[in-house]
Amino acid sequence: MRFLTLLLLLVALSAAADPLPSWRDGPTKAALTGFVAAVTDAGSPDFVPAPERIAVFDNDGTLWVEQPMYTQLAFVLNRIAELADAHPEWREQQPFKAALEGDTATLGDAGMAGLMQLLMATHAGMSSDAFARIASDWITAARHPRFERPYTELVYQPMLELLDFLRANGFKTFIVSGGGVDFMRPWTETVYGIPPEQVVGSQIALEYAVRDGVPTLVREPEVAFIDDKAGKPVGIWRHIGRRPLLAFGNSDGDYQMLEWTTAGDGLRLGVLLHHDDAEREYAYDRDSHMGRLDRGLDDAAGKGWLLVSMQQDWQQVFSEPAPSAVAPVADN
Amino acid sequence: MRFLTLLLLLVALSAAADPLPSWRDGPTKAALTGFVAAVTDAGSPDFVPAPERIAVFDNDGTLWVEQPMYTQLAFVLNRIAELADAHPEWREQQPFKAALEGDTATLGDAGMAGLMQLLMATHAGMSSDAFARIASDWITAARHPRFERPYTELVYQPMLELLDFLRANGFKTFIVSGGGVDFMRPWTETVYGIPPEQVVGSQIALEYAVRDGVPTLVREPEVAFIDDKAGKPVGIWRHIGRRPLLAFGNSDGDYQMLEWTTAGDGLRLGVLLHHDDAEREYAYDRDSHMGRLDRGLDDAAGKGWLLVSMQQDWQQVFSEPAPSAVAPVADN
Repeated sequence: MRFLTLLLLLVALSAAADPLPSWRDGPTKAALTGFVAAVTDAGSPDFVPAPERIAVFDNDGTLWVEQPMYTQLAFVLNRIAELADAHPEWREQQPFKAALEGDTATLGDAGMAGLMQLLMATHAGMSSDAFARIASDWITAARHPRFERPYTELVYQPMLELLDFLRANGFKTFIVSGGGVDFMRPWTETVYGIPPEQVVGSQIALEYAVRDGVPTLVREPEVAFIDDKAGKPVGIWRHIGRRPLLAFGNSDGDYQMLEWTTAGDGLRLGVLLHHDDAEREYAYDRDSHMGRLDRGLDDAAGKGWLLVSMQQDWQQVFSEPAPSAVAPVADN
Repeated sequence: MRFLTLLLLLVALSAAADPLPSWRDGPTKAALTGFVAAVTDAGSPDFVPAPERIAVFDNDGTLWVEQPMYTQLAFVLNRIAELADAHPEWREQQPFKAALEGDTATLGDAGMAGLMQLLMATHAGMSSDAFARIASDWITAARHPRFERPYTELVYQPMLELLDFLRANGFKTFIVSGGGVDFMRPWTETVYGIPPEQVVGSQIALEYAVRDGVPTLVREPEVAFIDDKAGKPVGIWRHIGRRPLLAFGNSDGDYQMLEWTTAGDGLRLGVLLHHDDAEREYAYDRDSHMGRLDRGLDDAAGKGWLLVSMQQDWQQVFSEPAPSAVAPVADN
């Protein structure tokens, strides 16, 4: 009995000592911990001072689930339905009609132009404070269709551990996502420990105006910046002003971010998460409409990028359910 | 003798205990320290959690000297002269001819369009890494015409103390400047303790391209964002995603930043530095071409903004000379 207690204690201690318990032991985990050791050990030839330790992460499909559709797209379709009563004309007007009827074929045909119409109808015309509340309320109430859990609980446990591990080693962690920055910021701090000012994303046009005596930032129906593909290195430079040491993504939208990051001097690391786990999450790559990974899959080995297999490298996929993942949004 | 030692010790201790020794005791200093105490004391009704303690500072005329001209304008004129050998056509072509001849009347007539031509000729066409090196080299070598010291030493000692004091109280300090973000970032960390990712400023267009196999961010001759006047609240929201608690400026270019900041819920503070010290620095406000302060001077009292008098409130103006203020720029 005493021996068993000791054994349990040892198991607990060794688990506590492992900063990445949800990553299975093997070459992938060793490459991640080895990289961090190399750039943080003051005696290492690859040592980098703490202020320059910048790590950037894609969001959709890298930190949380992006199937069967991007969460922000689910938000758009949901908001169109909620706003339809105030817009009776949408019942006959495309692409709104298709959105309301769940007619994905017509939506697909409407392409990027159609998507933009839906985006602007749901993301523009209100103040920045009002939109933060709308996004926050939605994400608190919404549930994923397959897992029936809040989206903010469908974040990847191994990635939460990696974010913590990097921060414990002096890294500053940033999100660099094609998603809308104002859709993410209300909850990234609570869910990922990443504050709003460390979230880089796509941007809608903003106009400052004093409305009825109240200084307000108004969201205008125009895209100001798309933080995807070749936009990602641009977004990083505009926002951070340094080249990252580590870039972690999962799709061809992250290709240029990894390419530019790993072309920097000294030791750098590019990582791609491969969704190959249909049982616990999803399996998709070259043919997916969301998070397509094609060119990255071809070039990863040649470029020295680390390819993470969800199925083989992750002991656990999703984070444990939290009682309340989203903090209330204060009027600010 | 023993009493004198004790007295000196007490003086030294009380100086050490004052976080703002270059600020003269009085209502201005009391307002600053009182504000910080109110938002950081957990028992205060105005308490704000540390992650929300955001303080934003204008740069030109707020953290460093902006007379007789903005430092970045001195950089532009200097670079035009340096590049003139490679551009013999400039000797006959306005506004370059006027810039080379120091013909400020013609330069003034050329207005914003002329200034843009000079800006683009000196700020675009190279990689982001190359520009960082050009800006860094220039600021290391350049001297202010009146004070004959590097510009990075003409930063205000009371403001350095205030930045430190705020950070020691859990604030995150940001620069929000009309100046070019890539002109400031190479030296803000060494001089102000503000890292590149906490500098918000005007932006030139960037394009990502793989040039001769090298992934590169190329600076394009087009302005992407002007972080001045109504652009400042926009820049803050885009970059930081929270409304600041404290905004500190010195000109009408900061008016909207202070207006939007102080319109937020709870205790907020807007501060304007009034340059009224011709002897130690400069005296200018309503009629100045650089850093004009007119509307802000009229409205400060009514809006509850704190007006700092350089002459009365500051014991010392400039920081002490430093042996080497600018860190070498590494290839990143």
